[in-house]
Amino acid sequence: MTQVIDLAKRLMAAPSITPATGSVFDAMEAMLAPLGFEVTRFMRGDGEEGTPEAPVENLFAIRRGPEGSKHFGFAGHLDVVPPGGGWASEPFEPEERGDLLYGRGAVDMKGAIACMVDAVAQVPADAGTISFIITGDEEGPALHGTRAIIDYMTAEGITPDLCLVGEPTSVNRLGDMMKIGRRGSVNIWLEVEGTQGHVAYPHFADNPIPKLVAMLAELDALVLDEGTDWFQPSNLEITDLEVGNPAHNVIPERAKARISIRFNDCHSGASLSEQIAAIARKHDGTALPIVSGEPFLTPPGQFSDIIHAAVKAETGLEPEPSTTGGTSDARFLRAVCPVIEFGLCNATMHKRDEAVAMADLSTLSRIYTRIARDALAR
Amino acid sequence: MTQVIDLAKRLMAAPSITPATGSVFDAMEAMLAPLGFEVTRFMRGDGEEGTPEAPVENLFAIRRGPEGSKHFGFAGHLDVVPPGGGWASEPFEPEERGDLLYGRGAVDMKGAIACMVDAVAQVPADAGTISFIITGDEEGPALHGTRAIIDYMTAEGITPDLCLVGEPTSVNRLGDMMKIGRRGSVNIWLEVEGTQGHVAYPHFADNPIPKLVAMLAELDALVLDEGTDWFQPSNLEITDLEVGNPAHNVIPERAKARISIRFNDCHSGASLSEQIAAIARKHDGTALPIVSGEPFLTPPGQFSDIIHAAVKAETGLEPEPSTTGGTSDARFLRAVCPVIEFGLCNATMHKRDEAVAMADLSTLSRIYTRIARDALAR
Ligand SMILES: [Zn+2]
Ligand SMILES: [Zn+2]
Repeated sequence: MTQVIDLAKRLMAAPSITPATGSVFDAMEAMLAPLGFEVTRFMRGDGEEGTPEAPVENLFAIRRGPEGSKHFGFAGHLDVVPPGGGWASEPFEPEERGDLLYGRGAVDMKGAIACMVDAVAQVPADAGTISFIITGDEEGPALHGTRAIIDYMTAEGITPDLCLVGEPTSVNRLGDMMKIGRRGSVNIWLEVEGTQGHVAYPHFADNPIPKLVAMLAELDALVLDEGTDWFQPSNLEITDLEVGNPAHNVIPERAKARISIRFNDCHSGASLSEQIAAIARKHDGTALPIVSGEPFLTPPGQFSDIIHAAVKAETGLEPEPSTTGGTSDARFLRAVCPVIEFGLCNATMHKRDEAVAMADLSTLSRIYTRIARDALAR
Repeated sequence: MTQVIDLAKRLMAAPSITPATGSVFDAMEAMLAPLGFEVTRFMRGDGEEGTPEAPVENLFAIRRGPEGSKHFGFAGHLDVVPPGGGWASEPFEPEERGDLLYGRGAVDMKGAIACMVDAVAQVPADAGTISFIITGDEEGPALHGTRAIIDYMTAEGITPDLCLVGEPTSVNRLGDMMKIGRRGSVNIWLEVEGTQGHVAYPHFADNPIPKLVAMLAELDALVLDEGTDWFQPSNLEITDLEVGNPAHNVIPERAKARISIRFNDCHSGASLSEQIAAIARKHDGTALPIVSGEPFLTPPGQFSDIIHAAVKAETGLEPEPSTTGGTSDARFLRAVCPVIEFGLCNATMHKRDEAVAMADLSTLSRIYTRIARDALAR
């Protein structure tokens, strides 16, 4: 068994359904300390279990290079989504079957974190400063996770110059895609109030549904933008409708809808919220927005070149610089330094029988070694 | 206390929340038998209490005139809607306060039935044939009520030539309105099925909501007709929307709506159902219609003239021939003979503290006497 597979198994064997604390961080600390890392762990959140304020654990580890050397950060999360039922093997008892290693977190993203640890063992300590930014709350509300570590790094004056997040960005083959940006995300609750009445006497009522329908038709026809060089066009989906009127002969008092917008860097959460609210007002309605993430972009350049070269050297593939998909902690780290995501294949992430090709673990470890060395050398 | 008020009290004192059986029919039979009526009572429905098939009682009473004479029918219902709480007096203990008689059914329509009984006592037996078509299931599903009596009359070959339904059609003053028709009514359940997916990957999903919104926008803009000489334009109301998707980042699989159409005699339930289904199909949706009543019209003519003359003679008012409002058993009776509705003031019907002006009971009794005499004389 190679070293990286052993590391992955040790992390995967520690149950860590989001928000994660304790044993999985013990395993992580036990791997990093022998490699010369100074490890800081801290808890945040003082709420009840199951609430957004439930306690989460964070870990920051640093191996300082010579005075004035570059600082490269590896970022990721040790929490996982709940496994659900129907697995062929126990989700928190990693099991090799054929070429694959099965277990929750195999690709998202304990496998990648094992590769980071394995990789830094191959980088000489005098090459520069390397840090690990590892949270136990990425799959949950992410209130007290990576953001808290950023606060810590900023207060200590030890922010990285470049940061790689190990999310599973590969699609069909390890190395075919990296994420240089992510779209922002906002959910908006729409509501129109009318006056209840009987369908036989509509002139005594004010039906809110036709107004909501007209509002939604206008929203559905809205072209938010045409996309940019790096982003696909922003997209609006209507995700819910609700009236809840059981009486066939009654015109209801209130009609509601919810929309979800994934948007590129032509917009901000605030600008979009105001644009939608204006349309809602036009149809006598209201709009309540909750912005869950702003968009970010690390435009192609030095950092993506480093990743591209490392991937090509180890796999022969040229990773596509993409901005598709959901959100990640890169949206927070982007405020600190340029950040790109690159990691394992995402086909089984969040699914039953999550698994990683063991060969990919070895390859990713070598890619991460090249990236860290190259980033510190520039 | 005049005779008609006593009759009304006797009917109102018998609790008869829909579907009605028993004591209220005993009271009715006890009033009609001394007036020379042959009374037939029968139950229909063999289901559990509280289901649409729960047993209901019906009463048909006839006083036959000379061979070949005209046949005039009085129709109505002895069931009432549940009283609800907060009454100033007991809903099934009729109470006089000031000029009013309070109790459930005062205007809808035990009061009017008392007037019919009082009226026929003033019509000589040799003037013609008079019948009573009285159901205990008008406020409920109306499956086994007036329709069953129509079946009985048809089988016995004793259908009336004209029929008056005693629903409370007056608005501000007794005599200001009669109903010469009613609109039909259909509720239609609309549904669009799509493919569930994640809002970040809309190309893998098929959101059913925009299709439903486009369908509803088209339905809302639909002009069904411009109205007729006697009917207002048919009206479509969207009465419910339902998706029920709690997940903000999920495109749902299914979207539903419900519409309610009140329609005039330019349409039938079937023609409208097909028109809406075609629009639903255009937007990849389905439509499930339930027709609750077809429209009917007894065009102004001899029968409305008879009522007009009687009302004018007793009140000085000229009743407006209207087709507004909800549905009634006249929709069934219309298949047998011309039918018009005329009765008490409807301000308190179905409400708390339902009440009738005692003077109106005397006046309506006289109006009904004139109508029956005139109808039999023509
Ligand atoms: Zn992840
Ligand atoms: Zn009624």
